Order: sequence, then C-alpha cells, then structure tokens
Amino acid sequence: MIHKIAIIGASGYTGAELIRIIATHPNFQIVMLVANSKAGKPMAEVFPHLRHLNLPNLSKLEDVDFSGIDLCFCALPHKTSQEVISQLPKYLKIIDLSADFRIRDPKAYEKWYGNPHIAPETQKEAVYGLTEFFRDEIAKARLVAGTGCNSATGQFMLRPLLSADVIDTNDIILDMKCAVSGAGRALKENLLHSELSEGYNAYGVGGTHRHLGEFDQEFSAIAGKPVKIQFTPHLIPANRGILATGYVHGIPKDVHATLYEAYKDEPFLTVLPFGTTPSTHHVRGSNFCHIGVTGDRIEGRSIVIGVMDNLTKGSSGQAVQNANLMLGEDETSGLLMAPIFP
Amino acid sequence: MIHKIAIIGASGYTGAELIRIIATHPNFQIVMLVANSKAGKPMAEVFPHLRHLNLPNLSKLEDVDFSGIDLCFCALPHKTSQEVISQLPKYLKIIDLSADFRIRDPKAYEKWYGNPHIAPETQKEAVYGLTEFFRDEIAKARLVAGTGCNSATGQFMLRPLLSADVIDTNDIILDMKCAVSGAGRALKENLLHSELSEGYNAYGVGGTHRHLGEFDQEFSAIAGKPVKIQFTPHLIPANRGILATGYVHGIPKDVHATLYEAYKDEPFLTVLPFGTTPSTHHVRGSNFCHIGVTGDRIEGRSIVIGVMDNLTKGSSGQAVQNANLMLGEDETSGLLMAPIFP
Amino acid sequence: MIHKIAIIGASGYTGAELIRIIATHPNFQIVMLVANSKAGKPMAEVFPHLRHLNLPNLSKLEDVDFSGIDLCFCALPHKTSQEVISQLPKYLKIIDLSADFRIRDPKAYEKWYGNPHIAPETQKEAVYGLTEFFRDEIAKARLVAGTGCNSATGQFMLRPLLSADVIDTNDIILDMKCAVSGAGRALKENLLHSELSEGYNAYGVGGTHRHLGEFDQEFSAIAGKPVKIQFTPHLIPANRGILATGYVHGIPKDVHATLYEAYKDEPFLTVLPFGTTPSTHHVRGSNFCHIGVTGDRIEGRSIVIGVMDNLTKGSSGQAVQNANLMLGEDETSGLLMAPIFP
Amino acid sequence: MIHKIAIIGASGYTGAELIRIIATHPNFQIVMLVANSKAGKPMAEVFPHLRHLNLPNLSKLEDVDFSGIDLCFCALPHKTSQEVISQLPKYLKIIDLSADFRIRDPKAYEKWYGNPHIAPETQKEAVYGLTEFFRDEIAKARLVAGTGCNSATGQFMLRPLLSADVIDTNDIILDMKCAVSGAGRALKENLLHSELSEGYNAYGVGGTHRHLGEFDQEFSAIAGKPVKIQFTPHLIPANRGILATGYVHGIPKDVHATLYEAYKDEPFLTVLPFGTTPSTHHVRGSNFCHIGVTGDRIEGRSIVIGVMDNLTKGSSGQAVQNANLMLGEDETSGLLMAPIFP
Repeated sequence: MIHKIAIIGASGYTGAELIRIIATHPNFQIVMLVANSKAGKPMAEVFPHLRHLNLPNLSKLEDVDFSGIDLCFCALPHKTSQEVISQLPKYLKIIDLSADFRIRDPKAYEKWYGNPHIAPETQKEAVYGLTEFFRDEIAKARLVAGTGCNSATGQFMLRPLLSADVIDTNDIILDMKCAVSGAGRALKENLLHSELSEGYNAYGVGGTHRHLGEFDQEFSAIAGKPVKIQFTPHLIPANRGILATGYVHGIPKDVHATLYEAYKDEPFLTVLPFGTTPSTHHVRGSNFCHIGVTGDRIEGRSIVIGVMDNLTKGSSGQAVQNANLMLGEDETSGLLMAPIFP
Repeated sequence: MIHKIAIIGASGYTGAELIRIIATHPNFQIVMLVANSKAGKPMAEVFPHLRHLNLPNLSKLEDVDFSGIDLCFCALPHKTSQEVISQLPKYLKIIDLSADFRIRDPKAYEKWYGNPHIAPETQKEAVYGLTEFFRDEIAKARLVAGTGCNSATGQFMLRPLLSADVIDTNDIILDMKCAVSGAGRALKENLLHSELSEGYNAYGVGGTHRHLGEFDQEFSAIAGKPVKIQFTPHLIPANRGILATGYVHGIPKDVHATLYEAYKDEPFLTVLPFGTTPSTHHVRGSNFCHIGVTGDRIEGRSIVIGVMDNLTKGSSGQAVQNANLMLGEDETSGLLMAPIFP
Repeated sequence: MIHKIAIIGASGYTGAELIRIIATHPNFQIVMLVANSKAGKPMAEVFPHLRHLNLPNLSKLEDVDFSGIDLCFCALPHKTSQEVISQLPKYLKIIDLSADFRIRDPKAYEKWYGNPHIAPETQKEAVYGLTEFFRDEIAKARLVAGTGCNSATGQFMLRPLLSADVIDTNDIILDMKCAVSGAGRALKENLLHSELSEGYNAYGVGGTHRHLGEFDQEFSAIAGKPVKIQFTPHLIPANRGILATGYVHGIPKDVHATLYEAYKDEPFLTVLPFGTTPSTHHVRGSNFCHIGVTGDRIEGRSIVIGVMDNLTKGSSGQAVQNANLMLGEDETSGLLMAPIFP
Repeated sequence: MIHKIAIIGASGYTGAELIRIIATHPNFQIVMLVANSKAGKPMAEVFPHLRHLNLPNLSKLEDVDFSGIDLCFCALPHKTSQEVISQLPKYLKIIDLSADFRIRDPKAYEKWYGNPHIAPETQKEAVYGLTEFFRDEIAKARLVAGTGCNSATGQFMLRPLLSADVIDTNDIILDMKCAVSGAGRALKENLLHSELSEGYNAYGVGGTHRHLGEFDQEFSAIAGKPVKIQFTPHLIPANRGILATGYVHGIPKDVHATLYEAYKDEPFLTVLPFGTTPSTHHVRGSNFCHIGVTGDRIEGRSIVIGVMDNLTKGSSGQAVQNANLMLGEDETSGLLMAPIFP
C-alpha cells in the first residue's frame, strides 16, 4: 500500500534529506512539497541533486489541499512550526522536525526558546519521537515531535545508564562535536566555508544550549529526580555528523554491559565491543548510531562515545522511522542504506 | 531470484563501494569477500561503516571455492588483476574494475601501463563496460572490463558529438578535476590530508595520463580515424567527484541537442537545460551523471561539462549496472539511491 | 620613516589580509580603519585573529579625517568604491582593490559591470596595478587600481608570451580553479560550508566573467590587435588559491624559455623547471606566484599553469607591493613571509 | 648579530615550520638541514613552498660538521632523537622537538613511550621548554626539550589554576580536539584525506595518550601531590589547530581572574574577556594562544577553553621562542606574524 506524503519546509536540509530517504522507500510517495519562500520553483532548481525524481513543484502553504495526504512531515524552524501545525487539519498525521513540540511543559519551552508556546493544546497531543524508547506511543500518535539531533545522541548514550542506575547523576558531562549542517541552510557569517573550514570552536557554552531542555526533561523523568548535565557543543568543519564524548562516573564494564544489553536487538543502535571508539565517518548518510565505551586510568570513570549523522538518524531518518510506525510499515523500511565512505 | 556474488579486492574503496550498493540491492547477495593482505579480518574492522551488514570475513584467494558463485567483481590494482583473472574458472562471470582488460590492443596496453599483458587470450573475451554504449554485448559477456572513471566521464560528454560529427576532432580539450578517492587507499604522501586539503594541482600533464589509452581507442573507433584529445587531470581536495570541462569547436545549440537526444531515455545520464552548469555536489554517492552545455563569446566554441561520482557511476555503480545486465536483472536495480547533499 | 596607513572597507577579507601583512611591515602603521556597516566595533570582534594588534576601532567614513594619512587602501565592493574614492581628498594616495578603476574605457567598464562609471575623470588618473609590468607608473601614481585576482594570474602566465609572439592569439584557453575567499564575506547560499565543501562546479561560463574585461584590455594592447581568450572559472572547496591551466598553441620549450627569461629577476614570480607543475599548496598565504610549463603529446601545444594566493599576491599582497613603490619603500618590504604549509 | 642555525629532521612538518618562521627572523640564518631519508635533495623538492629561500640541500647526519653552528633544532621522532642527540657535540646548544627529553624520570618515560631511555645523563641536562614558565632556566640551558603540543595547551589552561589552588585537583577533564598535522607526515591509512576529511573520532582514549606523562609530571609538581587528569584527544578534519575544552570544579570568576592575572603581560598568551570562547581559526599559523573561561549553569563548575596552532605555538614557534632566549635575542623576535584567516 502506497502512503501519500507531504513535506512542509522542503527547501531546507532536513526537507531535502527526507526526500533523499523517501526516494527509495518502497511504500511512500511524495505528493506535495511546501516552501513558502521558494514557492513555484521546481525542486531541480532548489536542490539539483534531486532532479532525477519526479517531484511536485514547491507550493505555498495556503494553496495546499491536505485531503488524501496520509502523513505530513513539517521541517520548519521552531516558532513557525507551532504556528503552522496548529492550523493544519486536526485529522492529519504529522511528524514535526522542529523543537516546538519536544518540551512537554510550555514554561520550560518558553525558558529555553525565548518565545511563549502558542499551541499548548496541540502540545498535549504530541509524542516525543525518540523511536527506540517511545515505539508504542509513536505508533498510535497523531503528532510526533522529532527530537533534537544532539539530544538524541546524548539520550542513546545515557538513558539506559540512568534507568539502570549505574552512573552518578551529579557528574555527567557531554562534550559534543557537531557538523555544520545541523545549523541549517541559514545565511550566517560563521557558516560560510571561509569562516568555518580548517578551524573549530565551542558555542552555546555554559549550559545555555537549547537541547538541554530535552536532556533535563527526559533524564529527570528517568531518574525520578532533577538531573542536570553539563553540555558543551563544538562546531566542526564537516557537513554531517555528531560525536558526543560522555564523561560519567560508573564502572566501565557495567556501563558497557548495560548499553549492550539495552540495544542488542535494535536494528539501528550498535554498541561496539568494549574499548572500541566510534567515528562519524562510519555512520555518514545512514540511520545508524554507534556507541563505544572505554574505561579511564582513574577507577570508576567511564567514557561513552556516541556518533550519528545529524540529518539522518538525528533528524530525517528518525522521522521516517517514526512515520513507518505511524503508517504500519516495517520500522526499518527505506532506512537500511549503508553509510557512505569515503 | 537471488544471485550469489563474490568480490575480490574487497579492502579497497571500489570494493567497499560495491558492498555499499549491493547492501540494498534486492536480488544480490554477497557470499564471498577476498583480500589477501587483510585475509581473516572481519569487514567491521577493515571498513567499520559496513559493520551492520552480515558479511563474510575476508578470505585469501587460494582458499576460495567459486562453485555456486553467479558473478565475481574483481577490484584489484591493474597488473595484479590480469594475473588473478586469468587463473579464475573459465565459466565464471566476471566484472573487472581495473584497467587490465579495457584496452583491446595488448601493445597499446603495454604502452600506457608499462607492463606487457600476460593474458591476451582472456582479453579477447572482454567487453568494454561503458554500459550505455555496449548494453547488448555486456548482457551476453562473460568478462566485462569496467571503464576508467575519468574516461567514462569524458566519453559520456563526447561520444555522441563524435558520432554525429558536430565537433572538430582536432581540437578537443578535457580539463578534468578529480577527487582523491580515485587514487585509492594507497599510502602516498600526496594523498595525506595535510598535503591535500586546502590546495590543488594538476598531475599527469602533457598527455601522459593512462586514461588516454581508452580515449584514443574509443574516439578513434567512433570517428573512423585517429583522434587525439588533450587531457589534463587535477587533484581537488574532495573525496568523491569528477568534473570534466570540455572545450570543443562546434555550434553550442547543436552540441546540446545532440547530447540531449542521445540520452533522453537514459535513466542515469541527464543533459541539463542549455546554459546550466552541473556540480559534483549533485551526484555524490549516486549513479547519476549530469552534463551541461554552454556557448562561449567566441562563435563556434562550445563548453561541455560533465560530472559524476568516481566511485559510483565512475566505477562500482557502473559495475553493478553491468552485473544487472549480465544476470538478467533490471538495469537500474539497486542503483536508484539519491545523491547525498549536503 | 613610518608611513601612516588608512584602510577603507576593513571588515572584508581583503581588508583583513592587508592588516595581516602590514602587521609585520617595518614601516607601515595602520592609523585608521573604516567600515560603515560595523562602525564602532573593535577589530577584535570583527576579526578576532587580529586581536593581538593595537588597532583603532572601526569608524564611519563620514567621521574620518584624512589629513596626516600617507596612503589609503580602499577595499570596498565595486560601484561603492568609485562613489567613495571620487569623494576622497584629491591629494590622497589611494590603492583601490575593487574593479572600479581597472578598466580604462568607461564603456567597457559598463559592459562588464552593468553600471555606468560615475567617476571617469578619476579613472583617467588611475594606473593599472599589475606591479611587475607597471612599476614606474605605479611609483609615480596617486591612484592605483589593483587587478582582479584571476586576471593577475592569467596575465603573469600570458603577457610575456603575447609580447614575444610565441603563441597563437586565436586559441587561448584559461581554465581557472578558484578558492572561495575570492567571493568575499558575502552571505550567499552557495558560499555556505554545507553547500561548498566536498564538491565543485564551474561558474560564469561562456565568456561572461567580468575579469575578461581586464584580459581583453591588456592582451589586446600587448598584441596590438583584439585578442579574445576563453576563460572558465570553477569554484573549488578551499579557502585560498587560484590555479589557472592555460592551453595555448606554441612550442613548449619556447614558451618556457620566454617566461623564464621574463621573470628571472622577479622576487615574487617563479617559473618552475620545465615539466614541473605548481600547486596552490605551495604559495598559500604568501606573495609568490609559481608558473609551470609542460608540452603535450600533440606537437605545438603547450600547457602553462599558474598559481597564487588570491588574497595575497592576487589582491592585498599586490596592494602592499604597490604601496611600497608609491611610498619609496623597498618593493618586497613586509612581503617575504613564507607560504604556510600544511 | 646573525646566529647560524642547523635543523636535524628537516623533512617533517615541524622542520618545515621552523624554516617558515626563521625565513623572516631578522637574526637567524639556516646553514644546515639534515634529513637522512631524503639526503641530497633540494628543499624545493621536499617542500616546494620553501623554494624561494636560499636553503642548503638536505644532508646526511654523518656528513655534517657542527663547528660554527650556534644552535641546532632537532625535529626527529622520539627514540631516534635521543640516539642522535646523545651523539652530538656536548658544547652544542640544542632544542629538541621530540618527546625524548620532556620526562625527567626515565622510568616514567619508559612507561609512557614503551622504550627505555638510552641517554639518562643527557636527560639531566634538559630543561622543560614551556617558555612562559621556565624562562630563566631556558635562557641558560644547553638542551631544551620542547613540550608536546597538547600538553602545552593544557598547561597554559591549568597551571595558574593549580598554583592558585582555585580548582579541585580530583576532577579535571581535558577534552581535546586536534588537527591532523600533529600526527606528522607519516604514511598511515587514517591520515589519508579520504579517511579523515568529513569525519572525526576520538583516539588514545581511556588515559593512554602519551602526553599524560607531561601532565602528570608538571601538575603533580605544582600541586605538591599526585594529580591525575582525564584526557581524551579527538582527531578533527583540519590541518592545524588544537582546541582543549577543560571541565573543572572552581568558581568561574576566580578561574578567569587567575588566568587573566597570570598572563596579562605575556606577549603570546591572551585570556579573552569572561564568557568569550576562542577558536582555532583565530590563531592559525601564529604563535598566539587564546584562552576563554565561562561558567556553567551548575554552580561551581568552570569551562576553560584553550586554542593554539599545534605546529607553531605548540611546537616550532615555541622552539624559536626558546632559541631567542638561549641566544640572547628578544623573545618575540620573528614570531609576531599575524594568524592567517580565512
């Protein structure tokens, strides 16, 4: 059975990545692409790498008829996303890739994002889209909120450790190295090739990065008490990839065993043999997440390293994985493409 | 029907690319991987990006039993390739990705490659693997010689123009810009990141590059007279991609129309609208080739630009395309993955 | 004797490069930095790599007093530059890095740049700033027009060959590979790291690139007849560098000897031994230009390859070299820093 | 007064960087270059970016006469370095850039480097070359051991904090991001452009990296008790740069004030305003080190970030700085070149 798919926000990188993935999905068909700023243009102009596909031209949101659509991906910036989604038909299945429905508490949303939430009722419908931990709710959901790419990485590394209580919740550091496509297609000076290539820097330091809102929400829920981690992202001169180095207090072998056990049946989450370190090279363009665990010379300290492709498993791949669940497809359908290397 | 596939030379980039493509091929199953230098190792160690696949460990050639193999890809360096292939069972369907069987005339082979050909009888069996121009022979062949990646690009740009006699055969220049994976996984100083990134240079200048052997053979055959082009490759700091800028004497609109007409039904070859220039960004990781044509302010001069991914359409993708023909599969089977961008 | 230097347009890359060079110039002192869009800001914020220098804050042009300034560099976009320079004091020595005073004929300027020239009288004062060919005029000039970076590269490769009449003026092709800083610090989608890194493409094809205005002007003047070359620039994923591959009809040994003879006493122009190919790696961050010559297998064809750093020898280094002449300093003063590698 | 300089190990990156710096040093003259593996070759062939300099050809060590040499830089791999240096004339001033004389305790050396120290007597003469902390000893030394690039970065960030006792010595984490030139010019698969560009990974995890030997030695000496930090290096796809993110327990304002006070008169060490994060972009190719301090949302935690160019301040720049002290030159002589950006 072919499912008819719409994408709102099709002129950004996560929109293009959705199309890339769906291009070889056996049962999804893209029937509508929306991008107000580039409405009327053919995709061959906006993303020439997709020119071989028989795609509809970009439309304005106001010109769109959602009847007949089985599922709509919404890949808009946060704040815009809640405005748009709250106006969409209430029967429509939606996967939102923005931050707007990730935070259950509207006050926490406002704290991290700076703007009040204008659709708190819609928020109540939203299911948090970290597939491997919310499968059943996602399968039944009308609205799924895709996670942040950084927060997905950190959660895959830490959730089982918090659940099993094998690490100290007071001393968790995530030092994250993020590729640039995570910043989107926006025209900002620091994203220019000349400014970015051949160098790197931290940003959002000091516990100010918005993905902390998700970490706080999820980790505190698991631990049953407030958990505050330290999180420092760094911008790396590469296009795709997230690598998070986690410094935790816990017995290395226990940490490894807990993660291994948690994910041993997961199709996309791989815990490497103890002592092996993962690389973003080995997941690029794919929906896989690799996690490695090592000890340190200081007893009782563990280092957990997770990698994924921010655009795929961190965003659009996760979204398709969730769409498969929502539409009754096999969860891995369309998502088993191998990483691209070199 | 599932075809059982072997790959000899599985520890190099074209070997890995074959596996990447076949990973999502509906009817190919990899049952044997050979790499003498790394025999005994699991692929998860040699190419960790392929660790999610259920692949056999690497074997030594001498330990291999080819009965039951439907097709064998051979991704060895030239010279080694002819030694190995001449010893393989004569019933075995083979696609060679090296240069060893591309040149029909053993003397021409020796001239360009420096070593005498040791398997001239096997050479006689070989069909030149430029799929779009040799489909029928490839479908019936036992041994197919994959083309050079540079020469494939140049031929897609020029063959129809020579056939239609719309350009001057005495004044053809191909200025080529090649990404580094074309040089393979060899340990050479000039391929180190420190030596290569952030700079670029010509190499093999002055009509000395080996792919000229293929250009001479093919273009002269089409034109019915000796055709010698000028060809200068440049090494560019990127991992995948070939871009060839062709300077020819011919009427731009005729040049464009000829190419457009030649390829209008081809699934993988796209001639862009007149005046549009292609980019390697838009074919990366895919089996597509884009060709653009523009005029020049000097009347009677045309500029033809072709791009492809050297590892995919330029090598392993072409090989799978040929394998599909040889095994009775749809020619595009397993090859319709969209390019990866960014 | 210390010369007091002003820079207008100090927030762009060529402005920053002027400051980088002048930082170790023994006799130049920067006393004024102008950048209207960022006026009031300290340079440590606009270009943090210059924070160790004791630089004045950025000023608005209207707030500036030019008395006491010995020389003013103007690193503004074209069109703006002529508006500003025509309003500056008539006694002020100026080096303009824009395109506005490079083209002697205002009609030719308008043809290539699309806007009429508003300061044709000032234009008449301007000396073309290709140092090695206009030393005497530059030394006496009040206003020097820095050349285009692409056109400087091409001229160093071709001027002596045209003067000596050793190549055919009807068949000259320059295939140019340009790093991205040449496009400046403008916020354009195609200059984003995500869009540019790992891929490359031609642009300004078909004889439309503005630097052709300079080539036409200069080459026709040398040859004493209209000379039209073919020129195709390509955008390469690197920050600094120009490499031009020149295809000419002429005897290789004569071509090499002519260039070698022309430049053998030049401090910044090096003609490599015959058959050696230059690399942008080897001139990065320096004021040097390397030129290599090889033959082709087709008799009577020569390949000339030139490389330079577009920001240094192609722009700000050339400007300082000219300033040295205009202020009576040694021509190489402040310009002998070695290239940076890797 | 001109000092005559020899460089042993001139065919590697730190050797080339020494030459790049000395090229514009007013009082240093290179009179001898040694590189056994490439003896007899001109530098224009080994490092074409240095071809404009009038350098001696590379020599074999055995052919060299050290009389008349004022100072010798030794840029060999560790283990080889101690073998060579122990055979050099005892009167010769030497700066060793290898690891061989950094560790005062031969047993600790053997533990970290795997081989016994063969020149323990020579070791006793060696002064640790972290200029800003050992100026007086360096000025009087015959043999100075250049520090590791990573350990220099970490020490600049942490020494004043340990001296002032403003951080907890039991909880210090350095998460380091290293560019690839730090790995040298060795032919290793993981250093190939195809393997490295567009991805990143940790290495030497778990407290195994050799630079911990220096951290342990120096930090324990300052604290007057054993101090063991956690240190995880990551390989980043860039050629030059070190960025270390330090996670410490200490009051942010105190941490910043302590560092600011310690370095306020240092020409090469800059502590940025509180809350500002440094970037490797802003020190590339220069001898400067930038340090930033921020707080965290968790009270009592500070984040200290340090950046430098591994080849310059991290190695060859430090060496020239030390040479200036040893030869009575101004400490900054030849070292004030501005960073190169972009």
